[in-house]
Amino acid sequence: MAKQAVTIRDVAQRAGVSVATVSRVLSRAGRTSPHAEKAVREAAIDLGYRMNAQARALRSQKTNTIGLLISDVRNPFFGELAHAIEQSALHANYATLLGNANEDLAQQDRYIQTLRSLRVDGVILAPQDGGSSAVQDLIDDGIPTVFVDRTVAGIDIPSVSSDPSVGIRQAVGHLSACGGRRIGYIAGPQSTSTGQERLACYRDAAARAGFDMSEQLIHIGDFQQVSGEEGAHRLLTLGVDALFAADSPMAMGALVACRERGLRPGVDVDLIGFDDIALFRHTDPPLTAVSQDITGLGSTAFRLLQEVMAGGSPSSVRLPTALVVRRSTRLPAPPVAPVLP
Amino acid sequence: MAKQAVTIRDVAQRAGVSVATVSRVLSRAGRTSPHAEKAVREAAIDLGYRMNAQARALRSQKTNTIGLLISDVRNPFFGELAHAIEQSALHANYATLLGNANEDLAQQDRYIQTLRSLRVDGVILAPQDGGSSAVQDLIDDGIPTVFVDRTVAGIDIPSVSSDPSVGIRQAVGHLSACGGRRIGYIAGPQSTSTGQERLACYRDAAARAGFDMSEQLIHIGDFQQVSGEEGAHRLLTLGVDALFAADSPMAMGALVACRERGLRPGVDVDLIGFDDIALFRHTDPPLTAVSQDITGLGSTAFRLLQEVMAGGSPSSVRLPTALVVRRSTRLPAPPVAPVLP
Repeated sequence: MAKQAVTIRDVAQRAGVSVATVSRVLSRAGRTSPHAEKAVREAAIDLGYRMNAQARALRSQKTNTIGLLISDVRNPFFGELAHAIEQSALHANYATLLGNANEDLAQQDRYIQTLRSLRVDGVILAPQDGGSSAVQDLIDDGIPTVFVDRTVAGIDIPSVSSDPSVGIRQAVGHLSACGGRRIGYIAGPQSTSTGQERLACYRDAAARAGFDMSEQLIHIGDFQQVSGEEGAHRLLTLGVDALFAADSPMAMGALVACRERGLRPGVDVDLIGFDDIALFRHTDPPLTAVSQDITGLGSTAFRLLQEVMAGGSPSSVRLPTALVVRRSTRLPAPPVAPVLP
Repeated sequence: MAKQAVTIRDVAQRAGVSVATVSRVLSRAGRTSPHAEKAVREAAIDLGYRMNAQARALRSQKTNTIGLLISDVRNPFFGELAHAIEQSALHANYATLLGNANEDLAQQDRYIQTLRSLRVDGVILAPQDGGSSAVQDLIDDGIPTVFVDRTVAGIDIPSVSSDPSVGIRQAVGHLSACGGRRIGYIAGPQSTSTGQERLACYRDAAARAGFDMSEQLIHIGDFQQVSGEEGAHRLLTLGVDALFAADSPMAMGALVACRERGLRPGVDVDLIGFDDIALFRHTDPPLTAVSQDITGLGSTAFRLLQEVMAGGSPSSVRLPTALVVRRSTRLPAPPVAPVLP
């Protein structure tokens, strides 16, 4: 019993390497440095660590299914992302089982347990936040896992996500050119990497542009539509002349709030969204937005997972963002608009 | 070996009852008439039918997961439906594994096999069409299954779907009041029950309204956006003065086509969609649409599945539809618009 209490995490700590490295050494899958390999083997012997043979045998029975845990099935960004991942997986003869965390940590963790009990071959996860032991356990137990869209600080596994910096810098420059001085920013939850990073990029760009940096002009939402509506109403009451929402459902909420107040985006106020889902081309008015390469996120996520399932340890990937100018902002689009390919 | 070749379907045929009835009698779950029970037991003895005990034992190990197979994860109607089903399931302590058929029969059947191999406790299915033996096998093998949104002719299991007749009659009446004479109808695939039934309701209502009934004014699409665009272009070239699309992605496609031709829905042409997803309130212009009770479809589907899992045989449910008038049609909304609660 004493021996069973030793986990792969203890070995990693003793050896001074990551859990992923321990997993690669002990499963003889993937490359590691000779130095790391020696440290891991010595630590495992010192601690009396043994991999659970039964668990390994079970795990070797491939199911040709992967689990995909998305954050919100009603958010069109995740619908498009799920479709892209699934198409890549089908080409490689994997079925994708989709779970919906509904932007809720407990629901996410429950789905992780469900996917484990169903013995999926690997998991692609848009994680809820950094506080979950279920995510750590998944990785510690050697189940191939990659992050998509979001990452978790301190959990070092392959991931693919958008780098928001260029798109946000372009958006802030565009708002500045539109004449805005008081910008209201509707942020995502600060428990998510995307919520945090987009806000940090915004603060940085807004400070350089000389915008009013009062904290009250930042509204922390939850990536869902109602928080975009509430945030927009609060910020517009404070007299902002532009709104920038950090995802697509919150941008839709801001659009609703503008309409409820009789404000026309692109005429009375500037409005910029994020994600650039297909529907932004068809809203009234069409929305200016920071565009992510959703198809690239999906195909890359599956490629990374395939490499991990084959025992590799691929590098994480960041994909660029860019501003797409439409009619919800007052400045006409430049002759050659900065549009993602 | 000879005995194993006898299936539950053979027993049903011999006894002159449905497969579901045989399943209920032999598993002692659910009520059947004394007459049916006697017929089934005699047929089973005559044919030497025995349920596979191992399969039953395996099946009795509950996983507390259900499988949900939707038709298209990018279609917001199915995103909203999946969310509604999942919330109901979570309240009852079931996790929902989502598979995406992508409007493709082979992909649907593959997911059915995957869900079976994962031993879900039940399946909610928006079926692709009537030709699949995988669906029939699922039911023959006694795995609790219900249909949502769509049904399959000849497969008699509990289902919940919208009754399109009232909504479509209101839509045709509205187009008539708008002054339309040549209506272009963009239908769903005629391999789906929803595609067939909506077209039949449209033909019936359009004939009563005295519309031009030429077959060339009906375009058979595939429930996806591109077919709505293609259909709208073809129909507008034929000189129609109104478009009616049988689901939301095709309605979005028709909107795109109108814009490409410089036609403003609600001014130059009338456009009516189906499903009434949330985004129809925010398109340019907001879309007049036949509204389905998506939350009701979701909660009812899960309730029916629970009853089947408990051995019951609930009746199928049809939910009403109604027209919601917005600005994509030329007639102003009546003082009290017919809006679903």
